[in-house]
Formats: sequence, C-alpha cells, structure tokens
Amino acid sequence: MSEFDFIHRIRAEAARRTTLQNDLVCGIGDDAAIVRERDGRELLVTTDLLVEDVDFKLSYVPPSWLGHKALAVSLSDIAAMGGAVRYSLLTLAIPDKLQISEDFWTAFLDGYFALAEQHGVTLVGGDTSSTPGQLTIDSMVLGECRVGTAIRRNGARIGDGIYVTGSLGASAAGLKLLLLGAQVYEDRNDEVQAALRAHLKPEPRVAFGRRIGERGLAHAMIDVSDGLVQDLAHICNESGMGAVLDFEAVPIAAEVALVAEDQEAAFNLAVSGGEDYELLFTASGKEEGALLEISQACQLRVTRIGEILAEPGRLWLRRDGKLEPLAVRGFDHFAG
Amino acid sequence: MSEFDFIHRIRAEAARRTTLQNDLVCGIGDDAAIVRERDGRELLVTTDLLVEDVDFKLSYVPPSWLGHKALAVSLSDIAAMGGAVRYSLLTLAIPDKLQISEDFWTAFLDGYFALAEQHGVTLVGGDTSSTPGQLTIDSMVLGECRVGTAIRRNGARIGDGIYVTGSLGASAAGLKLLLLGAQVYEDRNDEVQAALRAHLKPEPRVAFGRRIGERGLAHAMIDVSDGLVQDLAHICNESGMGAVLDFEAVPIAAEVALVAEDQEAAFNLAVSGGEDYELLFTASGKEEGALLEISQACQLRVTRIGEILAEPGRLWLRRDGKLEPLAVRGFDHFAG
Repeated sequence: MSEFDFIHRIRAEAARRTTLQNDLVCGIGDDAAIVRERDGRELLVTTDLLVEDVDFKLSYVPPSWLGHKALAVSLSDIAAMGGAVRYSLLTLAIPDKLQISEDFWTAFLDGYFALAEQHGVTLVGGDTSSTPGQLTIDSMVLGECRVGTAIRRNGARIGDGIYVTGSLGASAAGLKLLLLGAQVYEDRNDEVQAALRAHLKPEPRVAFGRRIGERGLAHAMIDVSDGLVQDLAHICNESGMGAVLDFEAVPIAAEVALVAEDQEAAFNLAVSGGEDYELLFTASGKEEGALLEISQACQLRVTRIGEILAEPGRLWLRRDGKLEPLAVRGFDHFAG
Repeated sequence: MSEFDFIHRIRAEAARRTTLQNDLVCGIGDDAAIVRERDGRELLVTTDLLVEDVDFKLSYVPPSWLGHKALAVSLSDIAAMGGAVRYSLLTLAIPDKLQISEDFWTAFLDGYFALAEQHGVTLVGGDTSSTPGQLTIDSMVLGECRVGTAIRRNGARIGDGIYVTGSLGASAAGLKLLLLGAQVYEDRNDEVQAALRAHLKPEPRVAFGRRIGERGLAHAMIDVSDGLVQDLAHICNESGMGAVLDFEAVPIAAEVALVAEDQEAAFNLAVSGGEDYELLFTASGKEEGALLEISQACQLRVTRIGEILAEPGRLWLRRDGKLEPLAVRGFDHFAG
C-alpha cells in the first residue's frame, strides 16, 4: 500500500461516514481544511499523542479499539471544556510491519469512524509517514462553544462542591491485568473484560460535558487522564485554591477489586491510576438539581467527592472525620 | 527532565515569545485552546508529520533548524491556501536519548519560536510523550482568510498561466549532498551550504501566499512538497484539467549544478525532487502586473512555467517547440 493509496482510502472512508456539517467548506484533500467561522462562537482545539509501547501495545489491543481510543482521548478534552465536538485530524507514523496489513487498518479505521459517527465528528485532515520505530498516533479535535462559556481549569471557587462522573480505577485495573497477562475477548462481558475495555476503549463523556457547558453549571472542569488527585491538583493550582477529598465518597469502580488487596490499595489505585476519562468538575451546591437532571439524561452517575477550600495548592483527605494531607501521585508520560 | 517540567518550559517560552492576538482566549495550559471566531472569516487547519530517520537525521540537522522546519512545513500549507498564519500546536514523541539533552531542546525551541515570532504565530497547544523509537514531530498550524477567498487546488481554469515562486531543486540537491556526506556549518555561506539550508531550513512563502489570497490573484495554489510535477498533477487532477510545462522556463536553483551532471538531470531533479516549499499556482495572464507587484514587495521571484490545458489529467512537456508526455515522479513518504 503506497502513501497515496492509504490517504485515498482514509479520504473515501471519511466521505462515506461523514456527518454533514454546514460550516465545513473543505475537508481532506487540500493543503488545509477550511471551516467557516461565526460571531459569538469560540473554537476549541486539542491534540493527543499515543505512542506504541508507551501508551499501548499492539500485542494486546484490538486494532478497532485503538482507533476508538485515538479519537476518544481528544473528544474527552473538548468535553472537559464544556464544548461540542465537530472536526478531527488524524496523523499516523506507520511502522513497516503495519504498512501491508490491510486487516489492521480496516479495523483501526472502523473503530475511529464508528466513534466519530456516534458523536457527529467529521475527519477533515491529517498526515501520514512511515517510521522505522513505533506506531505513533496524533489525534486532533476541533470543538466549539458559545463565547465565554468554555469551562477552564482556573475557575474553581471557595465552597464549590467537587464532582466526578462515573467511577474511577477500572482503567488502571485493566492496565494491571494486561501486565499480568490478561487477554481481550471482544465479545465476552465479565469484570476482567470490563476492566480491559475501560483501559483500551474508554468512552469519552461527550454529551455530559457539552450539556454542562451549555447550561454553565461548572466553574472549573478537567478530564481525568493523569489520575484524579493529580487532575484535581491541576484545577487547584490553576484556580489558586485548595481542596478536601472525602475518602468514603470517591466512586471506586467494581473492577478495582480484581487487583487491589484492600480498601486502601483500591482507593490509591482509583485516585492515582489515570486514564479514566471521566469528567472532574467544581460547581456550586445550588446546582445539584440541574446536575441530577443531566446525570439522568446522559445515564451517567455523578458523585460529589469533596469541596474547594481557600488554601492555595493544599490538598486534604477527609477520612473518619479527620483531615490528612493528600499526596499527589499521577502518571508521568516521560517516566512511562 | 520530567514531562511536566518540559511542558512548563515550552509554556514559559511560548508566553515570553508570544505575539499578542486579540482572538486568543486561552492558549497552552488547559484541556483545549480557545480562539474567538468571527463572521466573514474562514479557519484554515493543517498538520504535518516529521519522523526521524525518514524525514531527517539527527546526525546532520542542527536542532534549531529542525525546530524551524517543523513549523515551516505547516506555515507553507497555510500560505498555499492564500491564508494568514495565526496559531500553532506542537506534538513531540521524544526518545530517551533526547530527554536529558537540555542543549538540544533549547536550540530546537529557539528555531521553532524564532520562525513563529517572525510570522506572528502563537503556540497554543500540543502534547508530548516518550518513545522507545524515533523522534516524531507533528506540527499543526491554524490560519485564516476572508470567507470564500481560500485558494484551493481545484480551481485551475483553461488558459491559466502556471507560476512558481523562487527556484526549484536546491532542497533535493541538499539532500543528495547530505547523503554523500556533506556537513552543515551554520555560519558558512557557499553554494553547498545554501543547498543544505534549502533542504534543512526551508523558508515558507508566508507573506507571498497571503497577499495572493488577499487580492484573489490565483485560481489554484499548492506548495511544492512532493515535487513540482507531482504537485502540478495534484492541481490538474483536482481541477479536471491538464497542463503543459515549458522545459526552458522552469527556474532551476543554482545549487542543482553541484549534483547534476547535465541539463537533463538538473531538470529532472528540479521537477521531481520535492520539499522546495515554493508556491505553485495558476492565474489568468491578465494578472501578471499584479503578480509582479507582489513579487517585488516580497522580494521573491515569480516565473511563468507553463499553461493549463483542457485535457483532464494529461501533462505535457514543451521542449524545442515539441510536446512530449511528462512522467509524474515524486516523493512517496511510505517508500522513504
């Protein structure tokens, strides 16, 4: 397969599975994509890098799940801004061993485009090259929101409740299981498979994030990629605030019990494991009714797990009625 | 150096060397960058991938030139749309050997930001990861233009003149010299060094492309990255046209003589070598006065090298008054 053949194939697939977008003037096939702008709107731009043998291994991830995850991680960033997802670009550095593998790319693109279709995202560009090294995927997503409604990390206020969607730690449990030799069976549906799926095929909280943004319900928001505590620290640092986390309130995924020997270990995995792609946000307690509405509409649990405090940069854990300092541990993409 | 240290460093550098942009609401440091949109404007989005040992070798490219080129190739795409360059994102997969090399990254970022400053581009995002393999750079640029003024590949008309900026083949000559063992001396200024510089530190035609777009002078435009003939074929294919190229008119760079044994070889290198990052466009002959003005304002030579014909997909070479078919040869990024 030559580079031009491959690009033609992606272009054809994008055309076939495209969502009609009024603002799109030109997608794949020119020097740049062209998108019409509109007054009163803000463009959101994000990009995420996935490197083979650092972020995933080809030996354990089904290619369609990898295609799904490549897009999911960037959709999650737009959700975390409270925006709507619109366009994507996909860049691939492709090792020789994969250049001839039609099956791999058919499955990969299928996973990518299935998620794109689900959320009305149109692929408008990208680039490809060969590489003597690892498969390297750069995934860019463009989103939008009304002017001034993007939810940043720096808006947390004293007394805000701290909320998180879904549950935490299933992705970290899945990674542990993979390292212990667990294998993916795409059609099987037990707890081990759920943990592997949480790690390898995360579902970005696209609709939830957009609704939170549309209704202006959160003061600060981030997606949980580095680990709950580290991502909470990002919010606190950017907002010049502190926080207290309630030990009992953190929603730990059932799958964590597969790999954690006790409650302490389960908690640590849930708050430091990373790659959950849940949304972590702060909001006034007065909004809990509205949050419940969105939670029900999206069929996605939301849990209050703590509170924003006035002490810049200090994180506390409340446990059995006592406060103790909370250590920030998370995932460093350089440490691997 | 940890990932967070590195990102903080890039963020500090971006803040220090940033061009004030009224539309930028939020740059580096959140889940996504935020840019205000405006009625009557179109957003242009492009991305380019550079892979070590495919697109460059660390053994021969000065790190500051690599930083320059990473941005240059994407700026060139926006110029080729007739747009103005505005924002950039930079994604880096970094091998272990480079993680500890402060000097490398100081020079790389210096090259990147020097070119960004020169063209008023603000870095607003990106991502980094480690890699067990090759240094891999994905460079995104956002540009803009007035609605309907972007110059695409598909607008060439029968009878249009075909024009190219600058001269062709110096980059391909530089690559040949590198493969023969030539070394870069950043301060030396002879013909060999000029060829190496053309390949390793190309100057994107940012101002020229933007002016062509502002004044609506071209019907179709592309930057010469795959090679003149191949890029002309892209224009012809997208426009449903053919073309004739004048053998004597093609402006061959002086540096080509360093590696080409005769006129035939020089012509072939100039039209198929690729990575010149000159602008190739078609325009009505009536616009030659306006083209000359822009050429003078930008101090950049423009040459008429042929004409658009009504035969879809057919390329001809006119030589000594005779027409012969022109073979399309160019650079395939998979073939390496």
